[in-house]
Amino acid sequence: MKKLLLLTAILMAGGTIQAQVRNHVAIPDLDDYLTLKCDFHMHSVFSDGLVWPTVRVDEAIREGLDVIAITEHIEVLRHKDDITASHNRAFDIAAKYAKGTDILVLKGSEITKGMPPGHFNAIFLDDCDALETQDPMDAFAATVEQGGFIFWNHPGWDSQQPDTTLWMPEHTEIYDRGFMQGIEVVNFHSYYPEAHQWAIDRNLTMFGNSDIHHPMQTDFDFARGEHRPMTLVFATEKTPAAIREALDERRTAVWFEDKLIGQEEILREIFEKSVDTINVRKTATRIYITLKNNSDLPFHLVKREQGNPLAYFRQYTIQPHRQHVITIKKTQESTSGRLKYEVTNLLVAPGKGLYCETDI
Amino acid sequence: MKKLLLLTAILMAGGTIQAQVRNHVAIPDLDDYLTLKCDFHMHSVFSDGLVWPTVRVDEAIREGLDVIAITEHIEVLRHKDDITASHNRAFDIAAKYAKGTDILVLKGSEITKGMPPGHFNAIFLDDCDALETQDPMDAFAATVEQGGFIFWNHPGWDSQQPDTTLWMPEHTEIYDRGFMQGIEVVNFHSYYPEAHQWAIDRNLTMFGNSDIHHPMQTDFDFARGEHRPMTLVFATEKTPAAIREALDERRTAVWFEDKLIGQEEILREIFEKSVDTINVRKTATRIYITLKNNSDLPFHLVKREQGNPLAYFRQYTIQPHRQHVITIKKTQESTSGRLKYEVTNLLVAPGKGLYCETDI
Amino acid sequence: MKKLLLLTAILMAGGTIQAQVRNHVAIPDLDDYLTLKCDFHMHSVFSDGLVWPTVRVDEAIREGLDVIAITEHIEVLRHKDDITASHNRAFDIAAKYAKGTDILVLKGSEITKGMPPGHFNAIFLDDCDALETQDPMDAFAATVEQGGFIFWNHPGWDSQQPDTTLWMPEHTEIYDRGFMQGIEVVNFHSYYPEAHQWAIDRNLTMFGNSDIHHPMQTDFDFARGEHRPMTLVFATEKTPAAIREALDERRTAVWFEDKLIGQEEILREIFEKSVDTINVRKTATRIYITLKNNSDLPFHLVKREQGNPLAYFRQYTIQPHRQHVITIKKTQESTSGRLKYEVTNLLVAPGKGLYCETDI
Amino acid sequence: MKKLLLLTAILMAGGTIQAQVRNHVAIPDLDDYLTLKCDFHMHSVFSDGLVWPTVRVDEAIREGLDVIAITEHIEVLRHKDDITASHNRAFDIAAKYAKGTDILVLKGSEITKGMPPGHFNAIFLDDCDALETQDPMDAFAATVEQGGFIFWNHPGWDSQQPDTTLWMPEHTEIYDRGFMQGIEVVNFHSYYPEAHQWAIDRNLTMFGNSDIHHPMQTDFDFARGEHRPMTLVFATEKTPAAIREALDERRTAVWFEDKLIGQEEILREIFEKSVDTINVRKTATRIYITLKNNSDLPFHLVKREQGNPLAYFRQYTIQPHRQHVITIKKTQESTSGRLKYEVTNLLVAPGKGLYCETDI
Repeated sequence: MKKLLLLTAILMAGGTIQAQVRNHVAIPDLDDYLTLKCDFHMHSVFSDGLVWPTVRVDEAIREGLDVIAITEHIEVLRHKDDITASHNRAFDIAAKYAKGTDILVLKGSEITKGMPPGHFNAIFLDDCDALETQDPMDAFAATVEQGGFIFWNHPGWDSQQPDTTLWMPEHTEIYDRGFMQGIEVVNFHSYYPEAHQWAIDRNLTMFGNSDIHHPMQTDFDFARGEHRPMTLVFATEKTPAAIREALDERRTAVWFEDKLIGQEEILREIFEKSVDTINVRKTATRIYITLKNNSDLPFHLVKREQGNPLAYFRQYTIQPHRQHVITIKKTQESTSGRLKYEVTNLLVAPGKGLYCETDI
Repeated sequence: MKKLLLLTAILMAGGTIQAQVRNHVAIPDLDDYLTLKCDFHMHSVFSDGLVWPTVRVDEAIREGLDVIAITEHIEVLRHKDDITASHNRAFDIAAKYAKGTDILVLKGSEITKGMPPGHFNAIFLDDCDALETQDPMDAFAATVEQGGFIFWNHPGWDSQQPDTTLWMPEHTEIYDRGFMQGIEVVNFHSYYPEAHQWAIDRNLTMFGNSDIHHPMQTDFDFARGEHRPMTLVFATEKTPAAIREALDERRTAVWFEDKLIGQEEILREIFEKSVDTINVRKTATRIYITLKNNSDLPFHLVKREQGNPLAYFRQYTIQPHRQHVITIKKTQESTSGRLKYEVTNLLVAPGKGLYCETDI
Repeated sequence: MKKLLLLTAILMAGGTIQAQVRNHVAIPDLDDYLTLKCDFHMHSVFSDGLVWPTVRVDEAIREGLDVIAITEHIEVLRHKDDITASHNRAFDIAAKYAKGTDILVLKGSEITKGMPPGHFNAIFLDDCDALETQDPMDAFAATVEQGGFIFWNHPGWDSQQPDTTLWMPEHTEIYDRGFMQGIEVVNFHSYYPEAHQWAIDRNLTMFGNSDIHHPMQTDFDFARGEHRPMTLVFATEKTPAAIREALDERRTAVWFEDKLIGQEEILREIFEKSVDTINVRKTATRIYITLKNNSDLPFHLVKREQGNPLAYFRQYTIQPHRQHVITIKKTQESTSGRLKYEVTNLLVAPGKGLYCETDI
Repeated sequence: MKKLLLLTAILMAGGTIQAQVRNHVAIPDLDDYLTLKCDFHMHSVFSDGLVWPTVRVDEAIREGLDVIAITEHIEVLRHKDDITASHNRAFDIAAKYAKGTDILVLKGSEITKGMPPGHFNAIFLDDCDALETQDPMDAFAATVEQGGFIFWNHPGWDSQQPDTTLWMPEHTEIYDRGFMQGIEVVNFHSYYPEAHQWAIDRNLTMFGNSDIHHPMQTDFDFARGEHRPMTLVFATEKTPAAIREALDERRTAVWFEDKLIGQEEILREIFEKSVDTINVRKTATRIYITLKNNSDLPFHLVKREQGNPLAYFRQYTIQPHRQHVITIKKTQESTSGRLKYEVTNLLVAPGKGLYCETDI
């Protein structure tokens, strides 16, 4: 379950050498792609965060991430009385620290404007300083000029969207000019169903990011099994180019609490690769299916039919890393049948889980 | 980290099918022997325990044990107004339930007398009922007649040994007649240093058992990392005969809290097999040793020398399942040296840890 | 947070005296009634459970309950080869053990038939043995004759209700004859929305019970903050008569996971008594409301209006035992206003939370 | 158990308002003094720490401290390429943030030299910048000139004291000149018995501090019940003057893991105030003592006599926040007696627990 990592020792006054353990996030790779665990939105003391950039790398190591972007606000420099630096500085510090670890750090910034249009993240940047402009359109243009990738952050943030999550004319303009390639469907502790639907309708790449400002453990209770939201990127390899190609092709999914949000075919492949059928045993009156879930994900199944001669669960949760025996009663004489159910926490659209049929 | 197990489903009124997860206890096998995790002392409702015998099997599955013995008191039948049964009954129920699981159940009983001589466990029995005798010597003789194995339970139990843990003339008689082959060095939450010394002096097989009466989770807080005490048996295979051979040859160790108690050569092999040296890097002024501990055991190291030209830790803990980088400073010009330390939680005698020297 | 309790010491072989800690469930009393925490459905080895009846009392002490009923199946005696006893026996053992503790034990039984009509619990019994009848109607009649109280257990149990949760003609007959006074809206890990609606439509007393068979900690992970489902009974005092009066008057609510299920006026009073307004501070542009939640319950608030000149949260969770500062922005000049929201985890009907308006 | 606190709301991008909960450390006040929970040694990004100074205040709120000092290294400015500021700056930020909270922030610095003499903390400073001197003696003199208080940090740090913990001639000089008023007996995860003895022999005020550099949760696992080391200060009120008076008078104790380290009379008063005797019940053969421990401290009791006609525990742990019933057997006819035991985790000297006698 745990994959360990060589860490540069940090000798601390007070006399200990730090030992870190790297968690392994058990979500399977796909047939054709690696499943990279990514967080493309976070802050350090170089904008309005509260930790040194290296802490974001330590957290990523511990939590089993593959890729992070520290995306300081261009416009919100909360500690500017004490820290004056290039907008590239947090990246430089984190990237140097991450060398030799399993963490890939991408350069990014948060373009931070009032609503409309709100906040946008630009990643795959060469020079963050070029984004310091008055007009957001200029910052977007500077991003695209550098070959950067732009996504809309927390579109349903109630501080900027008090009543409902609205797509405004300004967003249409940004979208039409090619300045919005992705959107956060999840930010921190919030999921935005409207943004989920827009991602589907407008072919936007889906993101789920932590937007963390505090030390991570302050806002996520790992002892209770919580995890930060992650953007799963399905890439041919763990390189910036392959990640960028995956984002351009919209091959992402969002891991949020007990939910996975993404395209049907991807979620189906993850479900099938996560759960092995160990054994099917049939007696005169019952069928016993032994399953083993090798992933960190639970799967919440709800029956989606009536009148099947096989009487089976109406609701059933396959727990992470557990082996289950599902008992099915035959109400008629029959040696086989088909189970129809929805996996309600694999969201292919707002409110719509993954529909499955299984022959037994 | 987790090894899963096929469990017979238990359909419960109220509508769920139970899923169990088997913990894997990460303590390495030896070159020549399997390391079996055993608990040879526990109770169910068939004497003065508070759970059905099958619960002891469920607990053993979850906690990663290999072998258990449910050892009901012959003399203390707390629930006899409601339950009347052969002294073999708890074994029969547990053994039937354990079929097809990873748990091996041995037949045993607790011969329960006042001090002297106190309580003794008899295992590898054919018929527990034969041990229902007035005189403990008769019960011991009946055990030996069946080919059973006898060990003294909780010799330092303060209810029977109020002031100090004493070896009485009666114990000498029992020992001389071949009725005491082993001794509990650990019982429940207590370690008895006197018993540890007696085991060394008199060649007794060392045991550490839970003596559990309540549901296990009532007395051990697994969420805080606690585990029941276990007797590690180093056997050629997981069979009753091989376990018996190991007990006869005194090839056991006791896992208690963060301690391992046993013979020096066995503890040394476990230490060496638990910790891998990943890398040694030498600079002009320092040596960096990267270690990886693959076991559930911490190792508490204390330096046992002065004046070494290599300046290294005075105390150091290698955490379970962690990778550490130990930094050593060269105080003189030298490219190598020797570290001398004691692993204080690997107890080769009361108060005496495992002494090690490592060339680097 | 903790209320402690004098426990009869249990001297255990192996040498410890058990110390138990009683959790205090922080759900406020009402103006006119005590809020008693109750579980009216559980099993021991005297039917098909796996623990001695006293374990149910220990669990209730630890978890902070006030009242339990051990309700053995009349018809399912899984351990009858070893235990033969009156159906009253589990009660007798538990009630004797509970003397002098904070736990009140009620006498009850589970009338266990195929569907229809399924399983029913009878509590407030004098003699459980009288319920051993072939026809469930005879058992119900015997219950009523003794002055007992009857409720339908796990009406949506998928083993008995494979497709949907149905109210059958037999249930109408039982109801019409006065044999069904209550219904389990929650059993173990399941909530039945259909049963919730029936309770509203037919004036049935709502229950939420654990139906526990294993040791409690096997099925509820307390370290992760889980709790067993409880029936909250709003009674004038903690006596059998007062509890019975409350059940007859339908003054109950169900605590399940993070939800409270019950009548609007009761849930409103609990919400208001749980959350104190510490302070309201108004500036030119903002209003800051400081709240303190003194209860174990979270409250999930969702805004239920649009166009309010006060811009406030769209979703907000008031965490248990936390102090929050809610920030409200004035979008127009105004010194006061009204917040409209639903507390979605206080369920007054299936899918319908408690609607609130707050003037500020 | 929890005392809540009004916190200034922090509106975070991404849409949540932070709720914090203040832990209450349950260690009783003395008859004449408040028991203040203090940590006088920690770091932020303004020297070689990894968090913004306000994080230290947030941590102190959550963990229930009363007083902290952020004591940046004068000589180790790890982030000086990005942060240039007065040595007073971290205090200014933290003190401003702490206004209106329960946390009192003291101004301090760490004078950071090679061994000898090693590192020293200066607290109760007016101007940290005055301590930036080449010679440590000048920095000490500047501290005393300001009315500051000086203590020796981590005297047994193995990076500076490779073999044994030595008191060097330089330390005698510092001590004789009045530049060492206190000493860290505990730093981070280490206890130094030599320093403990020196504190006793030389009348030094004892300290136990965290010396934290990372986010606190990275180095202390609160979910497993760990806590940072704290200096308990017994003061007439929670003001800088009263704290200073207590330090001058050596009225401190150190809370480290499960140990309390300090002077006998103080530890005795804490023990007596922590544990209430609820009830003593005597039968013909036994005495039952019901105790209630209202504190966060366990108490490990070991019998310190032989031959008492009362047979009682040889070892016994009174758990935090638990009620225990201790059973004592009368081996002779007697209606009263005296228990003699040592509380081994209340350390009045290295290796020496608090000796107690209790008449019953």
